[in-house]
Amino acid sequence: MLHNTEPLNAVYQRGQKRLFEVDSHAGQAVIDSLQDISPDFADYVIQFGFGQVYSRAGLTLQQRELATIAALTAMGNAQPQLKVHIGAALNVGLSQTEIVETMIQMSVYAGFPAALNGLFAAKEVFAGHNCE
Amino acid sequence: MLHNTEPLNAVYQRGQKRLFEVDSHAGQAVIDSLQDISPDFADYVIQFGFGQVYSRAGLTLQQRELATIAALTAMGNAQPQLKVHIGAALNVGLSQTEIVETMIQMSVYAGFPAALNGLFAAKEVFAGHNCE
Amino acid sequence: MLHNTEPLNAVYQRGQKRLFEVDSHAGQAVIDSLQDISPDFADYVIQFGFGQVYSRAGLTLQQRELATIAALTAMGNAQPQLKVHIGAALNVGLSQTEIVETMIQMSVYAGFPAALNGLFAAKEVFAGHNCE
Amino acid sequence: MLHNTEPLNAVYQRGQKRLFEVDSHAGQAVIDSLQDISPDFADYVIQFGFGQVYSRAGLTLQQRELATIAALTAMGNAQPQLKVHIGAALNVGLSQTEIVETMIQMSVYAGFPAALNGLFAAKEVFAGHNCE
Amino acid sequence: MLHNTEPLNAVYQRGQKRLFEVDSHAGQAVIDSLQDISPDFADYVIQFGFGQVYSRAGLTLQQRELATIAALTAMGNAQPQLKVHIGAALNVGLSQTEIVETMIQMSVYAGFPAALNGLFAAKEVFAGHNCE
Amino acid sequence: MLHNTEPLNAVYQRGQKRLFEVDSHAGQAVIDSLQDISPDFADYVIQFGFGQVYSRAGLTLQQRELATIAALTAMGNAQPQLKVHIGAALNVGLSQTEIVETMIQMSVYAGFPAALNGLFAAKEVFAGHNCE
Repeated sequence: MLHNTEPLNAVYQRGQKRLFEVDSHAGQAVIDSLQDISPDFADYVIQFGFGQVYSRAGLTLQQRELATIAALTAMGNAQPQLKVHIGAALNVGLSQTEIVETMIQMSVYAGFPAALNGLFAAKEVFAGHNCE
Repeated sequence: MLHNTEPLNAVYQRGQKRLFEVDSHAGQAVIDSLQDISPDFADYVIQFGFGQVYSRAGLTLQQRELATIAALTAMGNAQPQLKVHIGAALNVGLSQTEIVETMIQMSVYAGFPAALNGLFAAKEVFAGHNCE
Repeated sequence: MLHNTEPLNAVYQRGQKRLFEVDSHAGQAVIDSLQDISPDFADYVIQFGFGQVYSRAGLTLQQRELATIAALTAMGNAQPQLKVHIGAALNVGLSQTEIVETMIQMSVYAGFPAALNGLFAAKEVFAGHNCE
Repeated sequence: MLHNTEPLNAVYQRGQKRLFEVDSHAGQAVIDSLQDISPDFADYVIQFGFGQVYSRAGLTLQQRELATIAALTAMGNAQPQLKVHIGAALNVGLSQTEIVETMIQMSVYAGFPAALNGLFAAKEVFAGHNCE
Repeated sequence: MLHNTEPLNAVYQRGQKRLFEVDSHAGQAVIDSLQDISPDFADYVIQFGFGQVYSRAGLTLQQRELATIAALTAMGNAQPQLKVHIGAALNVGLSQTEIVETMIQMSVYAGFPAALNGLFAAKEVFAGHNCE
Repeated sequence: MLHNTEPLNAVYQRGQKRLFEVDSHAGQAVIDSLQDISPDFADYVIQFGFGQVYSRAGLTLQQRELATIAALTAMGNAQPQLKVHIGAALNVGLSQTEIVETMIQMSVYAGFPAALNGLFAAKEVFAGHNCE
């Protein structure tokens, strides 16, 4: 039995707030790009991803973004999402050094090509942020 | 040009100290188990993995273990190493809650089976630690 | 904006009904096994996985299980979940032949070892079902 | 012992017919693009992939394409082939809705980035088909 | 057009001969284990895998087994097949040193856990061979 | 205890020599591209990857490049590095046929899309080499 009677639109609103806290530009861009293929999936990203998982206690947003960029760098097959989360990592206060260190460390767990492709993604995202 | 003249055995000693700081039992077990198949590879684990990467500044050991368990949970094909690092994560001061939250979050990036298998690995490691 | 005001516990109840329709024994076993490590994650499996995704229109349950066993066979790193879904596939009415054909086809997309390990998982699950 | 005395060129002809039934344009394009690097591999694609696996009884072509797009979306490392098979899925009669639903479901098994990249591939292929 | 009129059973016989040349015990064991789940797939393993691919000119059997153990070690999700091919690598004349070196090298491309799990598989297979 | 007192800069120099032996242009390009994001990681690529692993006895450089292109083709998520190593494979004396054969063989272990994407990478690299 689940006793949580929170309505889905309230979870969604919390998720939207959390997503925009993490990355307002890139977040909105992903949501927009889904509108003509699957607006329901955009809702799930916001509701489940951000209103539920990213809104949980137990880890700071900095820890959550560190975990996400570690995982996406290691998997090596989701470069667009890795770039979004490198930007998000900067937004929530991780330093460029912390991001670079995470990628270097992935060479030990997922190999040097995964680390290299993570570093090149970081280089591109940092360049955009440094120009702002 | 690299100007670092540190000898390999000094890097190795720093790595050995770092590995034992992270997980003395499991670390020694891995090193021992490699002696009759490839002692050189045990040296690389200690020298490169711990004497170089894990000894770098820029991330705390807690951040390093968080990144590692995120990556290994997401990859889903290295359960023995994931278990070692869940133990190491506890040793360097991450809480059981932080580890569980990391695995829950991996459901968003690598799917529910990856998160489930991470949680089951954590359950097993926590059980061993709780009995100590 | 999301206008859906359905409360989470109603989504959960729909998910629980759907999960038990798909596989009552294995479903309950997974939920039970999560209780002492992360009951919240068990709630997400039921709410998001079954109350939301598996409760959508647009695909029959047979199509959904076919897609799931194809994906898990191809990924090759989630054997426990693959076995659960082979059982679920039988429960929703896919034949043993349809399951075997799906695995054979995965040799083309993910290689012969993935297909072999899928077939061996099927063999084990079919043996259990044939004895009932 | 295998008693099947069918000659390879007959298997190949059946495969060629099946491939063109599934996707005449994209199929021919792949075959053509292999001619100056490995024409033998083009023969294997047609003979083994289409003349043997895709010509088997036990699954409809719609089921086969559903399984393929599920697997390629989940694996996330074969976008060109995923796009070919999204087109093929439409050609054999799967609806845009069935394809989108399959990708949404992959979020549960392979994570949200895999589902997102699958949906973006579908969006691109649908746009081309809708213009025809 | 394919002009090759070789009948499938001749391809199969060449494959069977090649498979037994590579690994008679393990090869037969895999074929046997498929008989009650998918004898057709056993035929494909022999016909396509060994009668076509492994029977091609251009690489020696030693090069083929080196490539296979590199790939399976890097993928990390097919340990039973990796063990079969470590045995096969020894059978076609690769030395234990060449196999161990291949696994060490995989640490650079797929990470240390992949290399470790490859070395542990090699240790197990070598132990069996050394006792013969 | 490790008794090797070789200083890191000597290992690095050996690695640099080995890297340039394998691929002087692409090697230098990778090192250069890391200078403004992580020069330390460039040092690790040279020191660990080439000064330690690629400088070991036990495998020829041709065997090492064969193993690497097999692994990267099978993994399918590191196309830039795969292209570098296809060039390196040619440089150390593997023939275009040996490279193509390795990729064809990967269809058996990692699926036809992985082999196709490997062949297309080879086609591109060969075209550049043939024009020199």
